[in-house]
Amino acid sequence: MRIDGMAYRTIWPDGEGVVAIIDQTRLPHDFAVVRLTSLEEAAHAIRAMLVRGAPLIGAAAAYGVALALRADPSDRGLEQACATLLATRPTAVNLRWALERMRALLAPLPESQRVEVAEAEAAAIADEDVEINRSIGQHGATLIRAAAARKAPGEPVNVLTHCNAGWLATVDWGTALAPVYAAFEQGIPLHVWVDETRPRNQGASLTAWELKHHGIPHTVIADNVGGHLMQHGKVDLCIVGTDRTTATGDVCNKIGTYLKALAAHDNGVPFYVGLPSPTVDWTIADGVREIPIEERDGREVSELTGRTADGRIETVRVTPDGSPVANYAFDVTPARLVTGLITERGVCAATRDGLLGLFPERR
Amino acid sequence: MRIDGMAYRTIWPDGEGVVAIIDQTRLPHDFAVVRLTSLEEAAHAIRAMLVRGAPLIGAAAAYGVALALRADPSDRGLEQACATLLATRPTAVNLRWALERMRALLAPLPESQRVEVAEAEAAAIADEDVEINRSIGQHGATLIRAAAARKAPGEPVNVLTHCNAGWLATVDWGTALAPVYAAFEQGIPLHVWVDETRPRNQGASLTAWELKHHGIPHTVIADNVGGHLMQHGKVDLCIVGTDRTTATGDVCNKIGTYLKALAAHDNGVPFYVGLPSPTVDWTIADGVREIPIEERDGREVSELTGRTADGRIETVRVTPDGSPVANYAFDVTPARLVTGLITERGVCAATRDGLLGLFPERR
Repeated sequence: MRIDGMAYRTIWPDGEGVVAIIDQTRLPHDFAVVRLTSLEEAAHAIRAMLVRGAPLIGAAAAYGVALALRADPSDRGLEQACATLLATRPTAVNLRWALERMRALLAPLPESQRVEVAEAEAAAIADEDVEINRSIGQHGATLIRAAAARKAPGEPVNVLTHCNAGWLATVDWGTALAPVYAAFEQGIPLHVWVDETRPRNQGASLTAWELKHHGIPHTVIADNVGGHLMQHGKVDLCIVGTDRTTATGDVCNKIGTYLKALAAHDNGVPFYVGLPSPTVDWTIADGVREIPIEERDGREVSELTGRTADGRIETVRVTPDGSPVANYAFDVTPARLVTGLITERGVCAATRDGLLGLFPERR
Repeated sequence: MRIDGMAYRTIWPDGEGVVAIIDQTRLPHDFAVVRLTSLEEAAHAIRAMLVRGAPLIGAAAAYGVALALRADPSDRGLEQACATLLATRPTAVNLRWALERMRALLAPLPESQRVEVAEAEAAAIADEDVEINRSIGQHGATLIRAAAARKAPGEPVNVLTHCNAGWLATVDWGTALAPVYAAFEQGIPLHVWVDETRPRNQGASLTAWELKHHGIPHTVIADNVGGHLMQHGKVDLCIVGTDRTTATGDVCNKIGTYLKALAAHDNGVPFYVGLPSPTVDWTIADGVREIPIEERDGREVSELTGRTADGRIETVRVTPDGSPVANYAFDVTPARLVTGLITERGVCAATRDGLLGLFPERR
């Protein structure tokens, strides 16, 4: 999408053996492009969340394999690349999906062909992600259009989103925000409530940043606010992303998503999930019991980084010295709270039958 | 309660015409006592939240009237003091209650007696608050004891709380945390999940601070986490405070309380409210429709203050320049989501009948 009028993707090849990314840890205060040239740099970019968001992680991992094979195109090099990249983020199913796709394609090939094929396949994964998200946007925009039709002419549709499942979380378009961008292109008036999304503030720092740069009206709110807004009719629909969705429609997404789904259900507000099909884990039926939840460094809760009035980037501690902190990164929203899944093939119920209706090859 | 072994209250007379408070805006990084000597200083302390929490606001307002009358004991002085103090925080019902009590007592008196009577009455309001909270603690501790009895011997009872309704929010003991302190004194093993409570972080900065200084095991979490913990059986009961509760049991409390009540209800976790009876607004029946919700400065969301690694207090911005922010300070939890109200007269259902059973004089 656009940054100050210029079209960008979040990851792109940038010359021989170089992959460029946007360093998302420096947003919203600093827009910086980082060039990756090795497996180690790619793994670091995923682990330290310079790139984040399930679809972008998948594309970055694929490019990481290609970078690794330039240094070592052997079977051992391929295995080590996949193992290193897989260990960077335990929850994201796209990571495993992308790596398995790369390995299955590359392992049978002679070493001399692996780099070229790996680079082409990483580019294909990136392009496919863009196409998937464009489709999610088109299908989701019909829901926003329907919400607009229920309002007074010209009155904006209020969409609430959590975390960042915008174009920065993907290669382009986003998942949860793809419908917003598509509706915006269609001229539907809308406004987005942006959950700041503690502890890493991806809403405040990334979603707000990308909406602002694309020119979409939005308001940042604390994560605590959504229930109040829904009680007072100020949210027409919620759209969130997902890191992993079960075959039965349970949605694993950024911590706090479940609370918003409960509020939406309690107030009759539709709650949708933007869902590229590679994010579906067809092997899992009970998300709450079966999906392991990543616990991250407590300093993400106790400390916070931002920009001072005079432009310095500072990290400040907000908890007392000596107070323990826990940092669960995701939660699972049971399918019963999800109005529908917006996939690249259309919108379906958050049920096994709903998903299989759109993806019959998984029967 | 205790700060490093020494017993404190949050407000106390400190010599002729001086009222001492703890400056809560400087916690958790700096423990500072501030001395108030005028109406303006008292109003500022409430408005700028050097003192906060419904019961403490009431006591501070009463002391503020006493300070004002030292400068101007006339009828006009009394009226102006009450009007100035009432305007500091629109939502807190205790503020109005304390000011009306002061005015009703003082208005009929000759000017020469007003200062002395006002000081005595402010002290009485403070003492009554301590006694009310001590009783809430005793009644609430029975709920924690019952939860302990359902667990393996020695296994701690996990209490989740939101915002700060601890002793810092009152004159002493707290409301939501009074049962925790009472259970701790009774030797019941317990652990408190502390919601950080964005945007002002009263959980991370105040609740964690007071629990730590009193020696009570606790863990700070992002506001997004509680639902996940409840899904996984890691919360035995929730106890929160309230700024204003309707005669029907709807609970107005810090923004985000409603989301935790929804999660508790969805997971069969008891959700209690520590409730001094002056916090009940007997004139209101529908909290969601009738209670006005304070909107505060958006900078509380977009900026955040903490301590750098080298000990400086810095304020950092976390949102992009130019992204709008909204800051609703409270929400209303419908009575249907509240398991019980813990009052100074006992625990009752969050219903009109429940409240009237304990407060029959309100029939």
